[in-house]
Amino acid sequence: MDYSLLFNAYAAQHGQQGWSRQRLLHACLRSAIRQGTLAAGTALAPSRALAEELGVARNTVLYAYEQLASEGFVQCDRRGTVVAAVPLQAALAQSAVPLAQAGLSQRMSNLRCSQPAAAPGGVPPPASQMGAFVPGVPALDQFPLAAWRRLLERAWRSLTPAQLNYGDPAGESPLRVAIADHLRAARGVVCDATQVFITDGTQSSLDLCLRALADVGDTIWIEHPGYAGALAAARGASLNVTGIEVDEEGIAPQPDDWLLRPPRLIYTTPSHQYPLGSVLSLRRRVALLDAARRAAALIIEDDYDSEFRHDGAPLSAMQGLAADAPVVYLGTFSKTMFPSLRIGFVVVPVALAPGFAQMRAHASARGRVGEQLALAEFLHSGQFARHVRRMRRLYRQRRDALVMAVQRHLGARVTLQGMSAGMHLVLCFKDESWRDEVISQQLLAHGIVAEALSAKAVQGGLALQGLVLGYAQVPAEQMDELIRRMAALLPPETTATARTSRRAQRKVKA
Amino acid sequence: MDYSLLFNAYAAQHGQQGWSRQRLLHACLRSAIRQGTLAAGTALAPSRALAEELGVARNTVLYAYEQLASEGFVQCDRRGTVVAAVPLQAALAQSAVPLAQAGLSQRMSNLRCSQPAAAPGGVPPPASQMGAFVPGVPALDQFPLAAWRRLLERAWRSLTPAQLNYGDPAGESPLRVAIADHLRAARGVVCDATQVFITDGTQSSLDLCLRALADVGDTIWIEHPGYAGALAAARGASLNVTGIEVDEEGIAPQPDDWLLRPPRLIYTTPSHQYPLGSVLSLRRRVALLDAARRAAALIIEDDYDSEFRHDGAPLSAMQGLAADAPVVYLGTFSKTMFPSLRIGFVVVPVALAPGFAQMRAHASARGRVGEQLALAEFLHSGQFARHVRRMRRLYRQRRDALVMAVQRHLGARVTLQGMSAGMHLVLCFKDESWRDEVISQQLLAHGIVAEALSAKAVQGGLALQGLVLGYAQVPAEQMDELIRRMAALLPPETTATARTSRRAQRKVKA
Repeated sequence: MDYSLLFNAYAAQHGQQGWSRQRLLHACLRSAIRQGTLAAGTALAPSRALAEELGVARNTVLYAYEQLASEGFVQCDRRGTVVAAVPLQAALAQSAVPLAQAGLSQRMSNLRCSQPAAAPGGVPPPASQMGAFVPGVPALDQFPLAAWRRLLERAWRSLTPAQLNYGDPAGESPLRVAIADHLRAARGVVCDATQVFITDGTQSSLDLCLRALADVGDTIWIEHPGYAGALAAARGASLNVTGIEVDEEGIAPQPDDWLLRPPRLIYTTPSHQYPLGSVLSLRRRVALLDAARRAAALIIEDDYDSEFRHDGAPLSAMQGLAADAPVVYLGTFSKTMFPSLRIGFVVVPVALAPGFAQMRAHASARGRVGEQLALAEFLHSGQFARHVRRMRRLYRQRRDALVMAVQRHLGARVTLQGMSAGMHLVLCFKDESWRDEVISQQLLAHGIVAEALSAKAVQGGLALQGLVLGYAQVPAEQMDELIRRMAALLPPETTATARTSRRAQRKVKA
Repeated sequence: MDYSLLFNAYAAQHGQQGWSRQRLLHACLRSAIRQGTLAAGTALAPSRALAEELGVARNTVLYAYEQLASEGFVQCDRRGTVVAAVPLQAALAQSAVPLAQAGLSQRMSNLRCSQPAAAPGGVPPPASQMGAFVPGVPALDQFPLAAWRRLLERAWRSLTPAQLNYGDPAGESPLRVAIADHLRAARGVVCDATQVFITDGTQSSLDLCLRALADVGDTIWIEHPGYAGALAAARGASLNVTGIEVDEEGIAPQPDDWLLRPPRLIYTTPSHQYPLGSVLSLRRRVALLDAARRAAALIIEDDYDSEFRHDGAPLSAMQGLAADAPVVYLGTFSKTMFPSLRIGFVVVPVALAPGFAQMRAHASARGRVGEQLALAEFLHSGQFARHVRRMRRLYRQRRDALVMAVQRHLGARVTLQGMSAGMHLVLCFKDESWRDEVISQQLLAHGIVAEALSAKAVQGGLALQGLVLGYAQVPAEQMDELIRRMAALLPPETTATARTSRRAQRKVKA
């Protein structure tokens, strides 16, 4: 065995990684044993001899031999250091069974086929889809980053070593208190801090709640069209999904749904339905609470962007409508602050709080104390409320500019929905022959991101075809130009729609 | 209706929350409608009159009325503002069906009954169990917090607004590269950055992998005794758990296990079995890889504390033993840095990397760019390696002190296991009549945290009874006193064990 040749070849291949000579020698010998170059039973050179041959210190060789021995690759017997008789080559080379057989689970393969989630909770659009009209992303350049950094730095400087340990599994107490205070005052949520559990965003909240509150095969209702992230979480939790139609008053379950497909969970976005933007009417809220109680179902209220209501003050949350409402309330700071913060929360009914607390002690690892304390202070000091107010004004301006631009350039070809709140609206095609996924692709090819409404279908297709336009990131002064470009790329007004729309216009005038 | 009385009573109750008068009035009227004080069909006072009566601006009243109208509580008709005819009281008061019926899922209720997880991945011990001998917590007061804070501050100052958006679902690229570099050099893992996926700790890694790689009802093997966090994740993923016995060579599946309970996943801690501390022998590693391939099973290698090997350098990971090994490798920074950091990672086989990337784009929300970039720099700059080396020396001293103290005060009553690596060891009772859970409770009552080995049972009980002692947090100079106190609390040596231990001592001498 020419050890120099072996070692130099190996070092030439791996030496640039900055490894020490002893690590290189150990890796070189291990590789030779694995590949059979040094066969089982071979006695390695005595350490002193090998050190001389390679021009290294004897300790270097001793270290490598010791490592090989502790890993079981060599043994010491009367001949010295001998390659162990482990059937390495046969076993390790055999890659006959392809790894794909042991590949992704069916539940996750399903997930891969579905559309990527975009707005409520938090799943990012593909990197290629950053830009104008991506829904669910706030005006990042408007966030008071310097002020936030100061709070973070202060929080980190205040940490004791003990606070580097696992944190409270429910979340840090000051943050839970600050969130409960905020929700009571601003969202009409009836809660105290013991009902608030911190998560790392809505997707985590959904993962947690769907597994904590339903078993394999249980039925969950999801608005159709709806939030793909909820659908993904439902599949991950092995639930049975029933899509429930949405109209202008929000989610609209039929008597048959309650009878034939009784839910254990109902996922809904009452303040600003995602994606259609309808506000769940009071009548429907009361009926839903009532029916959910009778069916022993829990409502999951995802209040993802309700802070931004453009016509009047934000509506109160459904959770606060009745004492002891069967509602789990989800919130996130991804829209009000920024997505990469990764902090969201769940507010559970009083009766479920002890169970949730116990469960999280087992199945979740908490920490990020610095970030949580900084956020508590951001809320407590009023900086959060100030930022939200500023963004509400900004987003209203941007919405107004978008609505105006659409009316100007596309008024005859589309109608608008869901403008009263949030950070997106829906542009519905009047011509039923237009296919939104085709149009969305065409626009993307020209650099305009406008997601197809059909991508939000929860089960089957959608009769309604249109585009979901997020406007929070688009400066008002760019709207007209963007929509003008979009209009030029859309099919022209057909005679049929022209006739309908003229008739509609006459009606409005009359 | 005496509005003044109503309003003043409400304000007295809620006014201290700092609400504006218009918010107070709105909440007051809403509450009165909900409670039936203002019944359906009641015409509210005209805004001007009410404003005068309450001594507030007319706009305050108009705002409150408008809010009530937009929420559907009132309507405008020829009589003015009228309470809407929604059957609120009947529906909302009815709390007849108790919420508990719609309570926690069975899978999570199971979880609550099991022991809280403690070491490998990351679930915190209950707050009452911080202190000496808690396993799985590093020496927090030794972490270079100031240096870490500087890296964090620098990373945050470098962020652009675009980096506040959703991050790469796989994790930030510089961190994935730094982790791959570290793993190749220090752990013998064969990987590049595209195989590395960032998570927020081992519990998240397990949640992700178990759902991504197995379907409901599939079998997972978990070492018995083993890590409760893996058990919790398996239950959360609705898998079928088979506990596999562990001996001094590590996990030891029997031929029957492969035949009768073939696994889809095998969870193992080969570098330092949790909790027993055995190192999986090379022979077993090869056999396990080989058998897993034949069975189309995947091995989940949890390498939670392998950086700390006290006798010789750290052993290489199983993942790197064979090209294209059917191994998913899990790592965490909770032990090498600090638990509240909440950053861990998964290294998947090349064949699974594209599937994982796609899946995570759907089902996980990523961000925390500042923290990820700071960690990449901590690794890249060599500060991480320096800290790990320092801790390795420190933990070795602490282990030596613990071993010495145990031999001195408890030598006749216990044997030690799993001392060669990590941050904990196991103290096994010689007297088979001692019950570890009873003793653990007694010690806790005297302020000594020493978890019972039985708490780590995965299925059924354990013949072996003992205590799991984490020593990373305990200064060497305190060991003797702590173990002396512990010895005084343990049952005295029985005649039987005394005889056995004297015989054993004679044997050793011979």
